[in-house]
Amino acid sequence: MEELYIKLLMDDHSIIEKALVIFERQLEKSKKNWSAISTLLDVLWDYGETCHNMKEEKVYFPLLLERGMPPQGPVAVMLAEHQKERDYLNKLKSLLPEAKQNKELEQEFSNIFGEYSALTKDHIWKENDILYPMGRKFVQPDDVPYLATEFKRIEQESLGVGAYTRYKTLVDALEKETGERINLLASLPIDVISDMLDALPVELTFVDAEDRVRYFNKLDKDKIFSRTLSAVGRLVQQCHPPKSIHLVNKIIQEMKEGKRDQATFWIHFNGMYLFIAYYAVRDENGNYRGVVEMVQDVNPYRALEGEKRLLDES
Amino acid sequence: MEELYIKLLMDDHSIIEKALVIFERQLEKSKKNWSAISTLLDVLWDYGETCHNMKEEKVYFPLLLERGMPPQGPVAVMLAEHQKERDYLNKLKSLLPEAKQNKELEQEFSNIFGEYSALTKDHIWKENDILYPMGRKFVQPDDVPYLATEFKRIEQESLGVGAYTRYKTLVDALEKETGERINLLASLPIDVISDMLDALPVELTFVDAEDRVRYFNKLDKDKIFSRTLSAVGRLVQQCHPPKSIHLVNKIIQEMKEGKRDQATFWIHFNGMYLFIAYYAVRDENGNYRGVVEMVQDVNPYRALEGEKRLLDES
Repeated sequence: MEELYIKLLMDDHSIIEKALVIFERQLEKSKKNWSAISTLLDVLWDYGETCHNMKEEKVYFPLLLERGMPPQGPVAVMLAEHQKERDYLNKLKSLLPEAKQNKELEQEFSNIFGEYSALTKDHIWKENDILYPMGRKFVQPDDVPYLATEFKRIEQESLGVGAYTRYKTLVDALEKETGERINLLASLPIDVISDMLDALPVELTFVDAEDRVRYFNKLDKDKIFSRTLSAVGRLVQQCHPPKSIHLVNKIIQEMKEGKRDQATFWIHFNGMYLFIAYYAVRDENGNYRGVVEMVQDVNPYRALEGEKRLLDES
Repeated sequence: MEELYIKLLMDDHSIIEKALVIFERQLEKSKKNWSAISTLLDVLWDYGETCHNMKEEKVYFPLLLERGMPPQGPVAVMLAEHQKERDYLNKLKSLLPEAKQNKELEQEFSNIFGEYSALTKDHIWKENDILYPMGRKFVQPDDVPYLATEFKRIEQESLGVGAYTRYKTLVDALEKETGERINLLASLPIDVISDMLDALPVELTFVDAEDRVRYFNKLDKDKIFSRTLSAVGRLVQQCHPPKSIHLVNKIIQEMKEGKRDQATFWIHFNGMYLFIAYYAVRDENGNYRGVVEMVQDVNPYRALEGEKRLLDES
């Protein structure tokens, strides 16, 4: 089994390699998710450079030299490659703002990333398969816990407590991206999203851009307004009494035309004071995707007095 | 090109065939989604029997006979098969409640469904490939619009306006099921779900069962409490000042132990009256999946007076 300090360095490499793969996948798309690219670039700099490479440059490499590894050997090669990585990353960071808007610069950005990625993958392979095994012959028993402790200190000082897991989760979240925006929801299992929406004290119903009921929460639970599976696929116009259909149509039409974003109503119902609201759902380009109804009893909010803060919790 | 009346009958077949395939897939699972099975059985009866088969038995078959098709020919075979389908479906419906709870009856249920499914698929093939083409030689030009009109009338009288699309949407929604419950959300693209949650006038943050921030809505939008991507993967304990961490831990611990379902707070903040609530997220078996924070300004709800109904909309 590998020593903890080697595991820590190799785990860092896994995050970096994954970020590289997702980055490449983004660059292959005709419509790129530039937010994801920008975030990945930050990950590669923040985690790869200020955290991982500094573990090596400030602690691991000096220790290897102190223990007798010749300074002109692999450490010199690794240091030179780190410098190349930094140069590439700085170029990419300065090109990014314009590459988003200019097809030629986008191509240049991709080319530079390709060189950076090839260098970094090769560098990781050299460290994992050559340097670390070779280094074990120089590292003394007492150095093993020292290295792990120092690596954790550098991680914490550079990026805060729990940085490894945080960056790993972030890269995993970016892996699930399919659109042109970052969609954090995509990294959650659909069942968890469903359970999350069922946990909210509101009733949600989603009607799609073709005016059909597609989703409502709390399927198997008690609801203020009962809904059953037979509502799925039903036209929203079929869910209202004839005398108000023209108003439903008017509201939806105005939402489709971008003239309206919401419609709100409030009624007394079974001892509750219901706030029934319709919000237009649009994509990042403002295209109408449907309308969501949110129903909640607002009586509890009307009865609140003063404040209750976390520290008031007994 | 096929006449509209043939297209309508064949579209019905597509719904039925899809329901059969999803049904089979459910029966192959070790843990079956009985809600989905029960719903599919309803679809096969309601749509397949009372809508589709009645189009044929009440309108199409009688017309073929009137136009000279011999009564002992394919129509008699089709009628006999419809009767067998009905017999199978009635057996399945009566077995269902016990099959859910008894492994032996579950096996019998599966066997009967297998026979029913084989019969129905074969029947559909015969109608599509033999009866309908043969029938075209008997159907007169004036019958073509008559058949389509009658089919639509039967659909509407048996299941209401828009039944075809409604059942098609429902079957499509069931196709996406992966768990043991029906998850309507699974039939929506993840981007649409994300857009829907961004449209709500609440700020949502989801922390998973390992206490890590995994999702928040309105990523690119103005929020009351700003959140950036760097929060993703962060431990919830890292999102609070040290003096209140013990309370955060206590609340989460109680939720994990099933002793608590929510924690609510309210504060004045920048002219708003914020209701900050935490709801435990659990799966269908009550297992803790995480906690969702919902923040909203409740001042607007406190200012409401009287009622505003849809018909008050001008």
